[in-house]
Formats: sequence, structure tokens, C-alpha cells
Amino acid sequence: MQYKNIIRILGLLVGLLSVTMLPPALISLIYRDGGGLPFILAFLWCICTGFLAWYPHRFEKTDLKAREGFLIVVLFWLVLASFSAIPLMLLEEPNLSTADAFFESFSGLTTTGATILNHIDDLPHAVLWYRQQLQWLGGMGIIVLAVAVLPMLGIGGMQLYRAETPGPVKDSKMTPRIADTAKHLWYIYLGLTIACALAYWLAGMSGFDAICHAFSTIAIGGFSTHDASMGYFNSPTINLVCVTFLLIAGVNFALHYAAVQSRSVRSYFFDPEFKVFIGIQIVLTVICFTVLLATGTYQDVDQALDQALFQSVSISTTAGFATTSFADWPTLLPMLLIFSSFIGGCAGSTGGGMKVVRVVLLYLQGLRELNKLVHPRAIFSIKLGRKVLPDRIVEAVWGFFSAYAAVFVICMLLLLAAGMDDITAFTAVAACINNLGPGLGEVAANFSSINDMSKWVLIMAMLFGRLEIFTLLVLFTPAFWRS
Amino acid sequence: MQYKNIIRILGLLVGLLSVTMLPPALISLIYRDGGGLPFILAFLWCICTGFLAWYPHRFEKTDLKAREGFLIVVLFWLVLASFSAIPLMLLEEPNLSTADAFFESFSGLTTTGATILNHIDDLPHAVLWYRQQLQWLGGMGIIVLAVAVLPMLGIGGMQLYRAETPGPVKDSKMTPRIADTAKHLWYIYLGLTIACALAYWLAGMSGFDAICHAFSTIAIGGFSTHDASMGYFNSPTINLVCVTFLLIAGVNFALHYAAVQSRSVRSYFFDPEFKVFIGIQIVLTVICFTVLLATGTYQDVDQALDQALFQSVSISTTAGFATTSFADWPTLLPMLLIFSSFIGGCAGSTGGGMKVVRVVLLYLQGLRELNKLVHPRAIFSIKLGRKVLPDRIVEAVWGFFSAYAAVFVICMLLLLAAGMDDITAFTAVAACINNLGPGLGEVAANFSSINDMSKWVLIMAMLFGRLEIFTLLVLFTPAFWRS
Ligand SMILES: [K+]
Ligand SMILES: [K+]
Repeated sequence: MQYKNIIRILGLLVGLLSVTMLPPALISLIYRDGGGLPFILAFLWCICTGFLAWYPHRFEKTDLKAREGFLIVVLFWLVLASFSAIPLMLLEEPNLSTADAFFESFSGLTTTGATILNHIDDLPHAVLWYRQQLQWLGGMGIIVLAVAVLPMLGIGGMQLYRAETPGPVKDSKMTPRIADTAKHLWYIYLGLTIACALAYWLAGMSGFDAICHAFSTIAIGGFSTHDASMGYFNSPTINLVCVTFLLIAGVNFALHYAAVQSRSVRSYFFDPEFKVFIGIQIVLTVICFTVLLATGTYQDVDQALDQALFQSVSISTTAGFATTSFADWPTLLPMLLIFSSFIGGCAGSTGGGMKVVRVVLLYLQGLRELNKLVHPRAIFSIKLGRKVLPDRIVEAVWGFFSAYAAVFVICMLLLLAAGMDDITAFTAVAACINNLGPGLGEVAANFSSINDMSKWVLIMAMLFGRLEIFTLLVLFTPAFWRS
Repeated sequence: MQYKNIIRILGLLVGLLSVTMLPPALISLIYRDGGGLPFILAFLWCICTGFLAWYPHRFEKTDLKAREGFLIVVLFWLVLASFSAIPLMLLEEPNLSTADAFFESFSGLTTTGATILNHIDDLPHAVLWYRQQLQWLGGMGIIVLAVAVLPMLGIGGMQLYRAETPGPVKDSKMTPRIADTAKHLWYIYLGLTIACALAYWLAGMSGFDAICHAFSTIAIGGFSTHDASMGYFNSPTINLVCVTFLLIAGVNFALHYAAVQSRSVRSYFFDPEFKVFIGIQIVLTVICFTVLLATGTYQDVDQALDQALFQSVSISTTAGFATTSFADWPTLLPMLLIFSSFIGGCAGSTGGGMKVVRVVLLYLQGLRELNKLVHPRAIFSIKLGRKVLPDRIVEAVWGFFSAYAAVFVICMLLLLAAGMDDITAFTAVAACINNLGPGLGEVAANFSSINDMSKWVLIMAMLFGRLEIFTLLVLFTPAFWRS
């Protein structure tokens, strides 16, 4: 293992991270909210640590192999999220514990959007900005992770997308290829964020809120500058802007890249995952709308449609923005939406969950198993669109699902052992492993009332979810360290 | 499809079933409980229907193919459980609805052991006997299904056991081979039941209770003649007898057969599934014992050990007998035990759940996926004991797990739509799909308070679980009916 090179890279990253402490400090200066000092201190801390890690190893620019790739990806999130917790720990008001600061920071950077804060409206502008910016930066990392890194590492069948990754395909060296891919994707990401912020602003948000919510919308993060989340604005127009940009951000960014390159939207309509993704949103909205009307939860048809559409898209893309407390909706709706977050966004998007394409593959693979029972000697291939899938991918997707379930159950049992009730534990793990945000029960609004042990378990769940289980799990195998 | 032959077989089965209505009628005569009439009527009904179905097709003895096998297996349970509901519908007191009678009958014959009755102690002896006998007969069916039929049909990787099936292996014709296997296994089943009844009787049960509970113990059914279940006897000796025979019944009956044939217990110790099965029981007992002592749930160490051992084995083998309400145990224990029922008994036993061997394979397959990530070009085989598994089995096991999860989620959503609360719905589906019996929440004691729609959903769940998902699911594919 090239530890020196890894330390060099992490040093660089922490150095880069230090720069992200400056905008909140600037915001503090603009709004004179007196909340700037923690960010200045964190800036100094990060830039010094980063320099000390980078400087001794600055010439160790060896080429990285897949195995180092796993370690760097995991350390990327662990180190950056830990350093991002520093300004939160330094805050005077609210005075956060280490567990709280780490929870908020990991929740931000993994774009989970679960919060331990319960008086968000009273926070200084600097802190509000910082939380939203964390999600936006997390989203940048996720795009590159999901479009370029995971396919290269072959996590959970994502080698499926190897050929589609933008950038020079034939180059087997990781570093230059990822850098090139990243550049292309970030332009799109930045463009979408600007468009989203403008749309929010035109729909009636303040400039500050518009930018902040654009950050967490395009990152499918779900943090808000208000306790009431999107419900604060009480505006169907703003809800519609949010839904539109969530749907865009929930699509594979490689498709956006293809659309930009070819100046045509054809690529979307040839993508089976995209069609299923849109289909899921429609089905969920229709179910919610019908049940809400049938039970008389809303008297007004327009309002029922607005709420049904917003909550369906917000939960199933794993954004987790709230307008109303969907936890109080009748009968099956809360759990239906929580279950839909297991499907989540498309592969290569900023969304969480298991990803639409994997659920499609699980369905096709299940059908194949049934066909094999009827015709034991026949050979059936699985096709996604026009592409025939190799068995390697089929196995990797089954394996992904099983590992997802196993991690889910273990996290849930740990929460129960820490004293949480059943329904809170179930939905809290779902909310964190799917990088969704809100759960039901005790964690329907926020995670402030749970104990520290539970917070650490959920931090692990967020990380497992964001790293698509195997990237993190592989570090726990002896084979990884031995070879 | 050889429909005439299928009708002939079902006619024969219903004719045989009619005979099983006579023992309860006899019991009624002995105890003079006035509960015999429904059983006489049911006897007449079954024997007439059976004869009418069998007589016109009595010469249609064609050989059956795998595809007819699926249909017969499903119809076997559907038809027998439906006819078994007849005497329950004819009862005057309690006056059961159709849904209730079917629920009780399916719960009996699938050895689920969930009940809609809540004053069991007041029932006539005839009814008590009938419920226990249903489970015992169900267990006979399961043994043959699990040891001979499912391996032959190749359900969920069970082709793994094809070579180990007792009886003439090379004969590819289904009927004679299954008949031969069944005979061998039923001797063992009968022998174990007699031994269990004697042990219960020596431990202090009445003769009637001893036989009744032996029926539901060897079938891992969980029905009791008392509302308080095993808790009625309040005897550590009886609990220990129960645990011992549950552990025996939870083991692959092909192993018992091998042990009988070779007059040696060596076969057990060479079986990886057996070792894991015993290991799971030990781990669960230790966890329960430790938590019960640490939380002071029981003051007495002996009592804590007795309860921990009994509930761990009773729930994880999916028997579902109760001594105490484990639903009220502290923190994680109730959910831990419910989760353990997903693992269930060994393949080829009367236990439910996904079966120990499949969980072992999922674990080994998960490890292989991790190793493949580290060494993408290496080839890893999966070994169970000394046997290398073909890829076909690996895929079938992944597929089984995914289908199990999918059926679970759909059933749970249907229950929520029917108005059930989250935790009751979750555990009710677990209790039925794993053929366990008791759940938590509203269904911790019995299923009397849930509505009819929920009962029908749970009947489906029991059937899906008992038929290992795919046997039933395959009937819903167009390919099955087309070919
Ligand atoms: K989120
Ligand atoms: K049972």
C-alpha cells in the first residue's frame, strides 16, 4: 500500500477543504452575525494540518491501483467529514457535543440531511450557509464517486457503467481519468446549481435562501435554513421548482453529460433506468394523491396534489425536504415513502438508496430465476435496454442487495441495544443508510433526542450507504490488507 | 399440463384427509365434550368430494414432470388447508368467520402456529386435538417437501441436496422416488413424535397434553392447548424437553436418516449447516441470558437461563411456543429474536424461515464478492464443507433472498393499507412468512384483533414462506402456463 502517496493526497484534500471555511466567514462578515470566528480557526487548523501531511510526501506521485482506490475513497469521506466537524465543535451557540458535530458534518457531506439541530431558524447565517455548502461539496464528491470511481472499482455491479464514463476510456490509469471526468461533471453540477438558485429566487425566496436551498437541492441533501424546511415558504411554486430540480439531480449525470455533448435529450429516452425512475415518481404521486383525497387529509384537490407530488419526489429521490409532516399521513403512506427511499435515485446521481438500476436488475434477475425453474436447461440472458449483462454483474447486484440488508439489520439491532424503540430504529437506519434524512417516530423531525451511541451507529450507516456498502466493507476483510 | 392426473391426485389426497377427521370425533366421544359433529360432517364432505374427483380419472396414472410438480405442491397446501377449514367453519362455539377458519387451518397446516383464537383453554378437546393434529400432518408434508420435492424442483438453491435425498437416486421419475423417501422419513418423524410425547408425559403433562404438544413440537408448529402455551405448565423440565425436541426437529431430516442408516451420529458433525444451527442457538441464548440478568428482568439466575434458552430456541427454530411474553423483554431482545426467525431451521427440517444453509451461503457469497473486489481477476469457489458449489446454486440463493424480501415488503405494505400499525405489520408478516407464529405489538399474543383483509394477506404470507417463495411465485409467470 502506498501510504505516503495516500497521506499526500489527503493532505492536499484537507488543504483544499480549508478554503471552504472562508465563504461562511465572509457570510458572517456580511450579515454581522458574529459567527465567523470558528470558521477562521477551522481554516487555519485545516490548512496547517493539510500542509504538514502534504509537505514531506509532496514528491510521492506514484500511480494508484484499485486497492489504494478503496482506501482513498473511504478516507476521503472520513477525513473530510471529520475536519468539517471542527467549526461545528467550536461554535458557542449551539454548544454541540463531539457526537453532534460529527453527526451534522457526516450528515451534510454524505448528503443525508438528518440533523441534530432543532432551532435552525435561530442559527447565525454563517452556520446556515456552512451546512448547505457541506451538502453541495458532498454532492460534488458523490458525482465523481458514482460516475467514475465506483464503476472503476466494480462496486455492486457498477462496472456496468465503465464504458459510459465520460473522459478518455482506454486510459487505465485512475488519477488522470478521474480528474478529467470530474471537470466535465462539475460544470454541469455548477450550471444546475445556478439555474436552481435563480429559479428559487424568482419563485420568491430571498437571495440567501435561494442559494442555500439550491446547494441542498442539487446535492439531494435535504438540509434547509428553516426548521419547517420547504414548508416555511408555503409556496406551491417553490415546491414545483424543488421537485423539478430534484428530478434532474436524481438522474445519472452521465446522461446529462451525454445530452450536453450531443445537444439533444435523446439519451434520456433510451435509458431504461431513467424511464423506471420517472415511472416510480408517477406511481408514488398517484398513490399518495388518491389516499390523501380518499381519507380527506386535504380538502383541497390542488393542495393534495401539491403535497403528494412534493413528498413523493422529496422522499423517493432521498432528498428528505419536508413541507408537511408526512409521518402523520394516513395508513400506509409514511412507510411506503420510506420504502421507496430504498430504491432512491439513479446510479450516477446525487441521490441515495440502492439506486433504480439495481432494483431494475434485481427484478429482471428474479424473473430469470423463475424462467429457469420452468425451463431448467434453457439459458436466459438479462438485457438492460439493448445491453446483455455478464454474469459477473448479476452476481454483484445480488451481493449488493444482501450486504445492504445485512448492514441494515446490524445497525438496527445496535440502535435497539442502545435503547431506541422499534419504529424509530427501523426508520432511522433507513433514513441514514439511504442518505434520506428524516425518519418516523422519534426522528420524524430531527435526530436531537437520540443518544450518542445511536448517533455514532447512524454515522456509520450514512457512510455505508454513501460508499455503497462494499467500498467500506472491503476494508474489513483480511484479504484486503494481506495482499 | 396433465390436469386429469392432477385432479386424480388431489381427489386421493382429500380422501386421505377425510380420515384425519375421525380422531377428533373419537376424542370428542371419549371426553364427551359434544364437539364431534363438525368432524363427522367434514369427514363425509371430504370423502365424497375426494371420491368424486378421483373416480372419473382413476386410470390417469401418467408420470409427472417438474412443471406439474409445482402446481401439485401448491394445490396440495391450498386444497388440503381449505378442506381442513371445514370443521372449523362448522363449529358452533366459537363461531368462526370464513377468514378465521381459513387462517387457523392454514396456520396449522403450514405449521405457522399463529392463532385467531383467544380462549383456547375453553375449547372442546376435539377442537384442541384437531388443531395440534393439523400441525403434525403439516409437518409430515413439509418433511417430504423439504427433503425430496424442493431439491428436485431446484427451489432457491435446494438442488444442493439432490444427491443426499434418501431413496433411489438415479430414478428420474418423481412419483416412486418421493413415495420411497416419504416412507423412510415418516418412520423417523413418527418415532420422534412418540419419544417426545413420552418425555412430556414423564415430565408431568397429562397424556392428552403430552400427545398434543408432541404433535406441535416435532412439526415446529407452536400451537398449544392452552392460552398460556408452554407457560401454562410452568415447568423447567417441560421447557427442557421442548427445547431438546425442537433442536432435533430443526435439523435436516436427511441427517437423521443418515444417522439411522449408519447407526452413528457422525453425519451430524460433518454437516456445516448443523454446526452453524447449534452455534446460532448458543449465541442467542447467551445474549438473551446476559441482557435479562443485566437488566434485572429476572432476579433468579436459573430462571433467566431457563427463559433465555427456551425463548431463543422456540423463536429461532420458528416454533413460536411461549412461556413468558418475550415481547415485553427489554430493548433489543424481542426484535433480535424476530430477526433470528428469518434464519429459521435447517433445510429439510420442519422449521421455517429462510433456512440456516441459505444464510451460510449468503455469508460465503458475500465474502467471495469482497475477495473479488480485492482480486478482480482471481477465481474464487464457494465451499460448503468439502463440496464446491456450482454457480447455479449461488445465483438461486441470492435470488431466493431477494424474492423473500420483495414478498415481505409487499405483504407489509398491504397490511399497512388495511390499517395496521407499523410494528404490528412488520412482525405479523415476519411471523407468517417465516412460519413462526407470534409477532409483536397487536399480534404478540394472538391474531384475533386484526381485520379480515389482513388475515387473507397473512394466509398468503404463510403459504409463500412454506412453499419457499418460488414454488408459488412461478405460478404467476406467463412462461409457466405457456410452455
Ligand atoms: K438526503
Ligand atoms: K411455528
